[in-house]
Amino acid sequence: MRYFPGKFLYLPSDFLFEVRNMADLPIAAVVRIAKKNGAERVGSDAAEALVVKAEKYIAQLTKESNKLAEHAGRKTIKKEDVDLASKSN
Amino acid sequence: MRYFPGKFLYLPSDFLFEVRNMADLPIAAVVRIAKKNGAERVGSDAAEALVVKAEKYIAQLTKESNKLAEHAGRKTIKKEDVDLASKSN
Repeated sequence: MRYFPGKFLYLPSDFLFEVRNMADLPIAAVVRIAKKNGAERVGSDAAEALVVKAEKYIAQLTKESNKLAEHAGRKTIKKEDVDLASKSN
Repeated sequence: MRYFPGKFLYLPSDFLFEVRNMADLPIAAVVRIAKKNGAERVGSDAAEALVVKAEKYIAQLTKESNKLAEHAGRKTIKKEDVDLASKSN
């Protein structure tokens, strides 16, 4: 196989699909929650924005919960950490 | 088929599994995000709490986004609605 410097590498479309879907939360699940909560139609850009923001929220809540677990001398996050963390969020 | 009043209805274990997993966000996805953000171990009760809180967050953000879309004369939620809604959250 030869390489062509300066040219784009050919990638199968599945790979691009993978890259586009690197988010951890499935878009379909987030849209389902949105529809249960009164959304009639959700644009695809809006769905992606909801996913990104939900992931950021989980990340922030986890970091706070982890701090609280460590503060209590644990390495395992318990429900009480999440509950307390969400109060201060 | 006869019914026995006062007795528990027999339900196949798949059904109970379904009931336990009525949440829309997959627990595994939420735990994956938590682990990417420094969580060493996440208790199963904590994982469930994270799912519940993430779903509430998405619900709240959707309701706010929907109001903004309607305010702009649209039935479709766009990214700009989600962005503005998350600012006021």
